[in-house]
Amino acid sequence: MAYDGTGFHGFAKQQGLRTVEGVLEHMLCRISGQQIELFGSGRTDAGVHARAQVVHWTQSMGPPAEKYVYILRRFLPSDIVAIEAKEVPEEFHARFSAIGKTYRYTLQRSKIADVFTTRYAWHYPWLLNVEKMTEAAKYLIGKHDFTSFSATSSSVEDRIRTIYKLDVIERGTYLDIYCSGNGFLQHMVRIIVGTLVDVARGRYEPADIKKILLSKDRKRAGRTAPSLGLTLWEVTYPNLDFSLDS
Amino acid sequence: MAYDGTGFHGFAKQQGLRTVEGVLEHMLCRISGQQIELFGSGRTDAGVHARAQVVHWTQSMGPPAEKYVYILRRFLPSDIVAIEAKEVPEEFHARFSAIGKTYRYTLQRSKIADVFTTRYAWHYPWLLNVEKMTEAAKYLIGKHDFTSFSATSSSVEDRIRTIYKLDVIERGTYLDIYCSGNGFLQHMVRIIVGTLVDVARGRYEPADIKKILLSKDRKRAGRTAPSLGLTLWEVTYPNLDFSLDS
Repeated sequence: MAYDGTGFHGFAKQQGLRTVEGVLEHMLCRISGQQIELFGSGRTDAGVHARAQVVHWTQSMGPPAEKYVYILRRFLPSDIVAIEAKEVPEEFHARFSAIGKTYRYTLQRSKIADVFTTRYAWHYPWLLNVEKMTEAAKYLIGKHDFTSFSATSSSVEDRIRTIYKLDVIERGTYLDIYCSGNGFLQHMVRIIVGTLVDVARGRYEPADIKKILLSKDRKRAGRTAPSLGLTLWEVTYPNLDFSLDS
Repeated sequence: MAYDGTGFHGFAKQQGLRTVEGVLEHMLCRISGQQIELFGSGRTDAGVHARAQVVHWTQSMGPPAEKYVYILRRFLPSDIVAIEAKEVPEEFHARFSAIGKTYRYTLQRSKIADVFTTRYAWHYPWLLNVEKMTEAAKYLIGKHDFTSFSATSSSVEDRIRTIYKLDVIERGTYLDIYCSGNGFLQHMVRIIVGTLVDVARGRYEPADIKKILLSKDRKRAGRTAPSLGLTLWEVTYPNLDFSLDS
């Protein structure tokens, strides 16, 4: 599924609020004629977008999997779309079968914001030292306790995660930060981005990242970058290919 | 000014509705501390976007012109932005001084709509014969009575306009139609696009455009393409350069 997160209160169902899971599950129940319980690869926060969120459900009747793309296109609102649907083995689970995830965070650096991308990028017109960001990013790659880079409100006990890749790529007046890992804590990508921006602004030196990680103290890291710049880019499964070609 | 037209009931002020002119004029009155009457280069319909709409006003007090870009950035909502502001000669008029306008209409041709451009492009997943569109476009270039290509509701008497350029350009899975002319009637670009699409689908032959023009009958032309794909791209003035670099 791809969605524009602007109009959703995040992925996870919440009573009385418009959420991705809520809208989708409701529609799947209507289409399949039965109670559907939807499972996503993970939650996305309010305002966060998805280029390729993966969900699964079990049905005992209703249309075959490959029909869902076209059926959903007719029934879903314009800010959410099914890109591909296929039958998966019984043991497949959108969340527990995933072996990796990639997020993209986008900053827009032009002096004047482009109104047509303002929903999808953090407008940041001030000078950024991209070289220092890239250098700082290297300290985050690998297996670390990311407590300093996760929301203090999170109740997750095990905060050790592995980042496979953290690339800072210039694209015209945009700056894309691609972050791949085996899993992400709440706000983790946004705090990483906020901290990299603080490095780029001179608040930290790249090597300070090491100390921030070791401190296991959220207060030592930088600010949380706004959600609108973040997109769930890809979810990886072994032996399962979700193609994005269209 | 650039604006995302999705959230506006068009450019022109309307009692009780959110319009570009309404929002902007209200803000200019507050900033300059006086009653401001705003003049735009022309109206755009509900849902139509602008990359470079031009407006002018007269003020006897308030900030100098060059400050407005930054002041407006702080006060305007995120779907409208001032790109440039400068003092103009007394005789300048955003509408009457304009010698040409360019619109861009965008179609998105991928099978599955991209949720991130769905607000700015007409999703048209069916086969289009682009060569035939290009051929048909040639018949529209030049000075013609465009009655067949304007809204029947329009009360304008003189419907003769000149189209300087009408280019159909493929951009990946998108199709951009650039239309430049000395002026445009209500819905004119959208009816031109709708008719070109009908040519591309085989409903008309390219040469039929000639007959449609001569008939001066709206019913002979194709459908009106949806407003969301249309963007006011540029307004041209003699001796006045509005730069879009940022």
